[in-house]
Amino acid sequence: MQSFSVLLQNFEQRFNKRHFPGEPQNLYDASQYILKIGGKRVRPVCVLMGNELFDEIDADAYEVAAAIELFHNFSLIHDDIMDKAPLRRGMETVHTRYGESTALLAGDVMLVAAYDYINKIKPLHLQKIISLFNKTAREVCEGQQMDMDFEKESEVSFEAYEKMITLKTSVLLAASMQMGAILGGAGGANQQHLYEFGKKLGIAFQVQDDYLDAFGDPEKFGKQPGGDIIVNKKTFLMIHALDVAKAEQKAELNELMKSVPEADEAKKQKVEKVLKIFRDCKVDAWAEELKDKYYREAMKHLEDIAVLSSRKTELEVLAKYLLQRDK
Amino acid sequence: MQSFSVLLQNFEQRFNKRHFPGEPQNLYDASQYILKIGGKRVRPVCVLMGNELFDEIDADAYEVAAAIELFHNFSLIHDDIMDKAPLRRGMETVHTRYGESTALLAGDVMLVAAYDYINKIKPLHLQKIISLFNKTAREVCEGQQMDMDFEKESEVSFEAYEKMITLKTSVLLAASMQMGAILGGAGGANQQHLYEFGKKLGIAFQVQDDYLDAFGDPEKFGKQPGGDIIVNKKTFLMIHALDVAKAEQKAELNELMKSVPEADEAKKQKVEKVLKIFRDCKVDAWAEELKDKYYREAMKHLEDIAVLSSRKTELEVLAKYLLQRDK
Repeated sequence: MQSFSVLLQNFEQRFNKRHFPGEPQNLYDASQYILKIGGKRVRPVCVLMGNELFDEIDADAYEVAAAIELFHNFSLIHDDIMDKAPLRRGMETVHTRYGESTALLAGDVMLVAAYDYINKIKPLHLQKIISLFNKTAREVCEGQQMDMDFEKESEVSFEAYEKMITLKTSVLLAASMQMGAILGGAGGANQQHLYEFGKKLGIAFQVQDDYLDAFGDPEKFGKQPGGDIIVNKKTFLMIHALDVAKAEQKAELNELMKSVPEADEAKKQKVEKVLKIFRDCKVDAWAEELKDKYYREAMKHLEDIAVLSSRKTELEVLAKYLLQRDK
Repeated sequence: MQSFSVLLQNFEQRFNKRHFPGEPQNLYDASQYILKIGGKRVRPVCVLMGNELFDEIDADAYEVAAAIELFHNFSLIHDDIMDKAPLRRGMETVHTRYGESTALLAGDVMLVAAYDYINKIKPLHLQKIISLFNKTAREVCEGQQMDMDFEKESEVSFEAYEKMITLKTSVLLAASMQMGAILGGAGGANQQHLYEFGKKLGIAFQVQDDYLDAFGDPEKFGKQPGGDIIVNKKTFLMIHALDVAKAEQKAELNELMKSVPEADEAKKQKVEKVLKIFRDCKVDAWAEELKDKYYREAMKHLEDIAVLSSRKTELEVLAKYLLQRDK
């Protein structure tokens, strides 16, 4: 199997082009804009890796990979509208630059364009791929709705949060791999193990993301920690802290989460106070163990896939890379 | 061929059910809500009629018809968000009732659900149907974008307006019929004639809609005329009036279009003044002739379809019904 970086290059060569007509310019420039501001392209490469785990890469895998990347960007455009986010990857979001209505439509045509790529594949696997694509698309929307619903709830259980994160962020990674496996002719059991591998990996990645936002080294991380804390975002860490904190700490957390400070000094104080409670509750060690648990579960599913273990090497490398593991 | 009303009943029997899962309730209730507030279901019945023009109705036509109706409602939900419309068919719009973010997502999952129905059809026609569906979906979005762009432009040509209306409202009717034809095994030329029949019919219907909004009988029409005039909506009538008006009339129209009156008396005066210019410019007669021209073009395409003319009767009846023609 080829490495992530080689496959990424192969994908980018095909994907880095204009995917939309010229007119109406406003609309299609908005769609193209978000593709130009980049992204790690992890999901489309996972389609290729899922395919190559079982067979040589089929040309159809590049179509499905493009569809997955377009779908991902569709969901980013619409999520940014809902979250009123001004920036993404340090650049203006689509609605900030082109207005909300055009951004909404730019997302819509992006989703349609994703189906256009899927529709190019050979008929043999078409219905299976569309079926999995649709199920996943629905789940991603459900995850976003749950996320918005949770904002209004004072208490969210670990199980509910894990489900939301799974839908909102993990199932697309999982489905990307499974679609590759389908194109590679994998049987049902192998497909399922690969799907679960991607799903668990995705959740582990989110735990890490939440952890780094609180405890990450600003030097390595490139930004001051505590962004989630300042805006009272529910995270794996906050939900666990509220679960295990003593009555007094819980009251303080709830009090701290009543405001969104704007002044730098107030932000800093809030972050420090919350982090102190996190540390007192050993949330940091718990999160590292949780990430590790999902990682081990992911690796178990990878092990259980019935192909030569030498074919699995690059997926192991990817998992370690995404989860910043040295060994 | 069966009549519109019989086919409508057949469609409604299958379509009147919940199309979405139970959870997250907020999200899927919002999607289901717009389906419950009704609609004439013209487009899905056109799928059935397009099919029956060439053969007995295939079970797949009901799947495609459901997909078309879901797509139409997806576009209504998103258009209403963009237009900030408080009401649709006298009921709260989805975003008024469920909030903009949930409405946005409710539209997204509706579009995905449309593809789910399409994906149920037999493989034989699947790629052709998806291809036409995608092209049409893109065009509907393009039409909406052009409509929004036109709001900001002081002069819009007849040709540009006709193109916008064609994309925004006619191509879906046209594609509905063509999809039925595809499922009925029609050849390419017959498909194209039926598509053009639907397209011209759709434009004629829009001309009539614009005409009735200005000159309709309030008794029959169920509302006071002039709604488009009050909000300065560009219509076939206004665009033609600006085209043919004398300098003085044009200046008065442009002056009148600078405000959106709120008081009832001011609204009434504005409507009266604009209608006087419309009448002086013979816009009313021009619009009736324009509608007639599209109708004749539509009927010519229907004539040119190579099937027994007795099979065409119900489509003729439909055209006359939609365009309120006695003969």
